[in-house]
Amino acid sequence: MAKAARTDAPALTDEEVRALDAHWRAANYLAAGQIYLMANPLLTEPLAPEHIKPRLLGHWGTSPGLNLVYTHLNRVIGARGLDALCVWGPGHGGPAVLAGSWLEGSYSETYPDVSRDAAGMGRLFRQFSFPGGVPSHVAPETPGSIHEGGELGYSLAHAYGAAFDNPGLLVACVVGDGEAETGPLAASWHSTKFLDPVHDGAVLPILHLNGYKIANPTVLSRLPESELDALLRGYGHEPLHVSGDDPDTVHRALAAAFDQALDTIAVMQRTARDEGVTERVHWPMIVLRTPKGWTGPAEVDGVPVEGTWRAHQVPLAGVRENPRHLRQLERWLRSYRPEELFDADGRPVPEVLRCVPEGARRLGATPHANGGLLTRELPLPPLDTFAVPVDAPGATLHEPTRVLGDLLARVMNDTRRSRDFRLVGPDETASNRLQAVFDASGKAWQAGTLPVDEHLDRHGRVMEVLSEHLCQGWLEGYLLTGRHGLFSCYEAFVHIVDSMVNQHIKWLKTSRELSWRAPVPSLNYLLTSHVWRQDHNGFSHQDPGFVDHVLNKSPSVVRVYLPPDANTLLSVADHILRSRDYVNVVVAGKQPCFDWLTMDQARAHCARGAGTWDWASTDGGREPDVVLACAGDVPTQEVLAAAQLLRRHLPALAVRVVNVVDMTRLLRHEDHPHGMPDFEYDGLFTTDKPVIFAYHGYPWLVHRLAYGRAGHPNLHVRGYKESGTTTTPFDMVVRNDLDRYRLVMDVIDRVPGLAVRAAHVRQTMADARTRHRAWITEHGTDLPEVADWRWEG
Amino acid sequence: MAKAARTDAPALTDEEVRALDAHWRAANYLAAGQIYLMANPLLTEPLAPEHIKPRLLGHWGTSPGLNLVYTHLNRVIGARGLDALCVWGPGHGGPAVLAGSWLEGSYSETYPDVSRDAAGMGRLFRQFSFPGGVPSHVAPETPGSIHEGGELGYSLAHAYGAAFDNPGLLVACVVGDGEAETGPLAASWHSTKFLDPVHDGAVLPILHLNGYKIANPTVLSRLPESELDALLRGYGHEPLHVSGDDPDTVHRALAAAFDQALDTIAVMQRTARDEGVTERVHWPMIVLRTPKGWTGPAEVDGVPVEGTWRAHQVPLAGVRENPRHLRQLERWLRSYRPEELFDADGRPVPEVLRCVPEGARRLGATPHANGGLLTRELPLPPLDTFAVPVDAPGATLHEPTRVLGDLLARVMNDTRRSRDFRLVGPDETASNRLQAVFDASGKAWQAGTLPVDEHLDRHGRVMEVLSEHLCQGWLEGYLLTGRHGLFSCYEAFVHIVDSMVNQHIKWLKTSRELSWRAPVPSLNYLLTSHVWRQDHNGFSHQDPGFVDHVLNKSPSVVRVYLPPDANTLLSVADHILRSRDYVNVVVAGKQPCFDWLTMDQARAHCARGAGTWDWASTDGGREPDVVLACAGDVPTQEVLAAAQLLRRHLPALAVRVVNVVDMTRLLRHEDHPHGMPDFEYDGLFTTDKPVIFAYHGYPWLVHRLAYGRAGHPNLHVRGYKESGTTTTPFDMVVRNDLDRYRLVMDVIDRVPGLAVRAAHVRQTMADARTRHRAWITEHGTDLPEVADWRWEG
Repeated sequence: MAKAARTDAPALTDEEVRALDAHWRAANYLAAGQIYLMANPLLTEPLAPEHIKPRLLGHWGTSPGLNLVYTHLNRVIGARGLDALCVWGPGHGGPAVLAGSWLEGSYSETYPDVSRDAAGMGRLFRQFSFPGGVPSHVAPETPGSIHEGGELGYSLAHAYGAAFDNPGLLVACVVGDGEAETGPLAASWHSTKFLDPVHDGAVLPILHLNGYKIANPTVLSRLPESELDALLRGYGHEPLHVSGDDPDTVHRALAAAFDQALDTIAVMQRTARDEGVTERVHWPMIVLRTPKGWTGPAEVDGVPVEGTWRAHQVPLAGVRENPRHLRQLERWLRSYRPEELFDADGRPVPEVLRCVPEGARRLGATPHANGGLLTRELPLPPLDTFAVPVDAPGATLHEPTRVLGDLLARVMNDTRRSRDFRLVGPDETASNRLQAVFDASGKAWQAGTLPVDEHLDRHGRVMEVLSEHLCQGWLEGYLLTGRHGLFSCYEAFVHIVDSMVNQHIKWLKTSRELSWRAPVPSLNYLLTSHVWRQDHNGFSHQDPGFVDHVLNKSPSVVRVYLPPDANTLLSVADHILRSRDYVNVVVAGKQPCFDWLTMDQARAHCARGAGTWDWASTDGGREPDVVLACAGDVPTQEVLAAAQLLRRHLPALAVRVVNVVDMTRLLRHEDHPHGMPDFEYDGLFTTDKPVIFAYHGYPWLVHRLAYGRAGHPNLHVRGYKESGTTTTPFDMVVRNDLDRYRLVMDVIDRVPGLAVRAAHVRQTMADARTRHRAWITEHGTDLPEVADWRWEG
Repeated sequence: MAKAARTDAPALTDEEVRALDAHWRAANYLAAGQIYLMANPLLTEPLAPEHIKPRLLGHWGTSPGLNLVYTHLNRVIGARGLDALCVWGPGHGGPAVLAGSWLEGSYSETYPDVSRDAAGMGRLFRQFSFPGGVPSHVAPETPGSIHEGGELGYSLAHAYGAAFDNPGLLVACVVGDGEAETGPLAASWHSTKFLDPVHDGAVLPILHLNGYKIANPTVLSRLPESELDALLRGYGHEPLHVSGDDPDTVHRALAAAFDQALDTIAVMQRTARDEGVTERVHWPMIVLRTPKGWTGPAEVDGVPVEGTWRAHQVPLAGVRENPRHLRQLERWLRSYRPEELFDADGRPVPEVLRCVPEGARRLGATPHANGGLLTRELPLPPLDTFAVPVDAPGATLHEPTRVLGDLLARVMNDTRRSRDFRLVGPDETASNRLQAVFDASGKAWQAGTLPVDEHLDRHGRVMEVLSEHLCQGWLEGYLLTGRHGLFSCYEAFVHIVDSMVNQHIKWLKTSRELSWRAPVPSLNYLLTSHVWRQDHNGFSHQDPGFVDHVLNKSPSVVRVYLPPDANTLLSVADHILRSRDYVNVVVAGKQPCFDWLTMDQARAHCARGAGTWDWASTDGGREPDVVLACAGDVPTQEVLAAAQLLRRHLPALAVRVVNVVDMTRLLRHEDHPHGMPDFEYDGLFTTDKPVIFAYHGYPWLVHRLAYGRAGHPNLHVRGYKESGTTTTPFDMVVRNDLDRYRLVMDVIDRVPGLAVRAAHVRQTMADARTRHRAWITEHGTDLPEVADWRWEG
């Protein structure tokens, strides 16, 4: 039974209902056709086995519901002149969104060979989930999409990300009742406390209860309506319930619900924008309850299909082999009366298109879903204003992220008007020492406030919520609609979004291969509060593996930087904030760190990505006895301390110090666009000298990157090997054999001839490690000789 | 203001309130003492800088609230004779839980050197967050804990996991209002639809609103109470609100709320168990609103601290250097009147211990938190009953996971009485072809049902919910309390729980180092619907990187298996289900797969973990010209097809086929307990012959495992390299250069002399790949010669 909603908009006329139903039937026909047909698209002849695809793939169950929403969104967009974008959470229903785009013409404009006629319809059908064709899900290939619906869980966060700082935009978001069981989606409902009715657009969630997942009922569909209603009100929504299985009734009720929701949104925005009302609003949403696989086969082989989980994928399976199924498919397809919907040339008749909007208002043509079209350059100030002065390497200390904070504050300030830059993070902006940004923008917050609060701001562009999933989802939505941003995160906990970054990388990889998709600003991670400085938090907060995770993914998209000091961090930040279509991972510390390079040196070093630090080396530019390599702030400090120990204890040894900022430079050029050619790698690391490499993360990553190099057998890597706990900074490196003393011992063990000649030095180093252990047990602090260490050159 | 709750239990007497408050004050004193003091624990002399730790670490803010819950749980456990376990979501508040355990004596029983007297109190204080001491969070080292509170998000799922199949257990769960913002926690509330009041215990969530995270208010604490109440009712709870900042009032209100909640739970369980009532119950929960850092410094240096985010960590920072802060700390500590709480020897006085329960009922002594003590052996049937008959290698096909399903059904059946085995998965048990288990158990489900539903069961032990987070969290809680289970998951989407498995591996690694923790059943993953067979779903469903992720973690915990057929899968399953304290990752297909090994051969092969398949090799046991290695079902098939092509086209070539089941065997023995010694590796792979390795996942993983081997420079690995889409099975391997034709070309390219001699064979292979591409474009199916391929020996 469908329930009526209240609105001032006039009820639908019978003619309007007929037009909406015609569009919906046409879309349903096209969705089913994509799953089944490789010929005879208009059913101009009786359906025969050879018209059927050899492999039947696709998801029918969710498609009629998505089609219904597409149809009705068309109506309100046209009637109200809206700028709208739709995020299709049940993205498995690719056939539906493709159908909507083809009907409105945006598909053929994007892919001219799939024309809006019988020939194009044939290609639309054949290409679907066909080798060399298009994916079965909503994907980058789908016009109007910013969301791949395969993994499930992120639709609502993406919708909010798209709406932030887009005051004129309506973002509709279909949330499937399967997806609604995921954690990220469950958290996303609370985005209502972060949406600014003044500067942001509106999000209209449409919770589609079709009742089933792959093989089970869904939780939300099996709650009493009063319980579901309480839940949604608890999330901060005013739910409008529409349910039914009679098309005519549902069309009328859904249209009324859309009208009521949009009326309410218009009033709320006007009140906030024109009248300055600041009370948090309860945004409307629609709960749409219709049968899974609606209008498909009611029963197959004597068991119910429509309205059950059995409609999830392909309701009639053995169509090519089973004449009964073939006849049933033909009856099903003809039930949409295609001859009324398409003319003899296969073009949609005017009634079908009556409610379809025009031009860029069409869901498949909105530039917001091809955000790069709308991207403005980020105003980035000259770095020298923010650089720390470096008179000599290692003479001073700065907290790199705090220095970066000043730069970000300027960017935040300089985007005050354009409002196209956001900083997201899980409650850690200040903890990560980026608090200077609060001078330029407060933290987005629409919930209650108290006098003691600081930096909360109804119009803020710094986003803090204790959910990495929300941070990531919001930012992805924001970037894919063409704006800029940065995600600052504790290094260990960015693994929470491993699977989300996978999907974003896949999205970007595919988008780069589509000429019609304009490049969008990169997804930038600042990973700080890193593994070596978890003095407070210990083992649970120690994990440097995100770098390993992303480096498995498409090299055309992934970049990884480990700036060793404040100025190199500035240079890297400037680079990534200008870049497009990448996922940039930057690991940098927030604790005081020696300043090694001047701004000019930092720029040059970062441009190379890896290079010799001559001032720290003793090889005089000739062939060294040993290479001390480092990547990351803490390993760099330990390598320099080791280099200094070697100068003192083994002054004749020719040591080359190499620092790596861009980890992908270690890869071969064939394997990554940034990879070094062999001659360059060999020139830096030699082909036959021992290389002691102190790396920030898991040591075997360096082997995985450099395994193809001539010098690889001489490469010895130290890094984090899960020996973690709550302890001092130096004890952490000692526990993981990354400390200066151990590195000197490694040099002695590996440079031919030193084992005997420098045995006494080795013993001195071993003694220092023993002294460290005794001191820390007694005092709980690091050895004074370590705590007070300075580079002396 | 505290609100009264209704209960039949008598209100607290003043004497009871005094006793509860004494316990609470003692716990608060001990919590603060751990953060600050390294001497003078009882304040028997005026506080001096040398009594203060040099590095002040820890989280005070949440501690008073946790202490309050510990105090009140003590009372109801004692008064009602409960078996109870508490999951402390705000696990950062380690000092609180350590205080509770020390007061009740369980701490000193676990760690006798930390005795329940002045000397022990001194050690309790000093060890906290001190090098060589204990972590600052609730951790494996903490008696009574099954939950590390560092990452946040999983407390409630762990609590439910602990409660499943523990009908006599009460699991209290403190949910912090920070943690409540995370996705996993937000999803966990819906566990109410999966808890069976008959066979499961009760979960009592205590949502602790102290109002702040690190630097921000929390979302839930800033909702109007009516909105929060609606949310919690929507989750399926009956909330009892307790709020206030007057200890006496809060003690009385909280006691009444506990009594009401436990009365209600008792009635609900009785109704379901004795009267057979099946209507879903709305479980009670407590909403506790008290100030952050309650009883700590109200103001420091003129700014408010108590009741604000500034109380999150160490409220008074510069205590050693700042005499004013030192005096304020002393006033704060003395405000608890330690001289009333501890006798001259530092032992808690009787009034403090009046409400503390006895023996195994103490929260720090419950065997449920040291689940290995309660673990029974899983009844595992003889494998031969389930083995598929193999007359000759590759003569028949079976779906490996379907064969495994029969075994799991038997295990499910044989644990009908003991109820100590569960299967979890995100709505994919049948999709992953394990549906035989439904003959032995339905799917846990307490929400509404319809006649069309199948296999839903109020008492089921198969758990399906569309949240990998919930699956993982439930299972972790179930295993850590001593029971058995398996998580079946789509391979690509197990990345959703990357960070959770990190934490579980860390937990197990630390637990193994604690002699008092008994080993618990392993966490077993079955990853299926894997990268090579995503015909429906395409690129978003293609990711084999979970193996890479776990192999970065502690080798004492992690095991990875890639059984190549049904019988090897059975053997691996038998092994992992018997094991303890591991995380076992098994990757196996659900699609028809050739049967290569008999059950006996499979057992022997899996016991070795890697070995030569003589029947497929042509080296006659002598030195081969080339080694064809494989790991995973699809790579094994391609390698055997390549071996067959080589027999036909290059019959003189001596080919050795090596199959690897246990990936960690490739590591050196020093790096993993399963690692092969060099002589064994060299014997299998040779030191100087080309090795063409067809691997299931990202190819560089094999390099990372084998980089230290003598033969490494000759190792050439093929695997998945992110060339994915919706396509046929064979097209997937071609796109990633893992196909039989490419492997033969690799052999020709790498065996010295073949490049010229076998140029025509190479061309034949290249032609086959071209033929494939033409065929698939036209037909959308695989070449008949591939689709119909059989091993001919």
